[in-house]
Amino acid sequence: MRAQCPTHRLMGVIGDRWSVLVLIALHDGGETRTADLRRAVEGVSQKMLTQTLRRLQDHDLVSRAVEATVPVSVSYTLTDRGRGLCAALAPLRAWAETHVDDLRRD
Amino acid sequence: MRAQCPTHRLMGVIGDRWSVLVLIALHDGGETRTADLRRAVEGVSQKMLTQTLRRLQDHDLVSRAVEATVPVSVSYTLTDRGRGLCAALAPLRAWAETHVDDLRRD
Repeated sequence: MRAQCPTHRLMGVIGDRWSVLVLIALHDGGETRTADLRRAVEGVSQKMLTQTLRRLQDHDLVSRAVEATVPVSVSYTLTDRGRGLCAALAPLRAWAETHVDDLRRD
Repeated sequence: MRAQCPTHRLMGVIGDRWSVLVLIALHDGGETRTADLRRAVEGVSQKMLTQTLRRLQDHDLVSRAVEATVPVSVSYTLTDRGRGLCAALAPLRAWAETHVDDLRRD
């Protein structure tokens, strides 16, 4: 797989521990604030969550909305493209549900 | 998603840049030697490929065979579980094929 091949490029965007989990948390939770996302994805640090959200925004998978509340309120939602990617991830989630006990516990 | 939730645990196994690409290279290439895998997955270092293959073996997604040739010949193939995971990855590959041009070029 050449670096420019589609799957190779996609793994450059979501090929890390947190991107898929953040996408799924947004898919399952609808519009979500950063604090909710941190609770939704156990183990993600604030820095990693911020970097992940920014990368997903860069690729128009996630959109960010700012409300002029005091303090300001920032929330994230999946874009249509992000929803499409989550649909493509559904079989992987189903596989995980069926096979998780076969995976060795780290 | 709790750390013990299936998808969270699966991302602990394949949530990195190379695991999915190595699985796909094995799926597309059948039984494959390390040198072939390095050529098949552009950009992967020998160290990263070795670590990835070992982790995929640990989780019985890949099996390793050693032939007593001179020098010794080592080849890798997907296990049934690995083939099942690749089938679950197929929609993600299809999504990438359709949407790769939408992804921002890094």
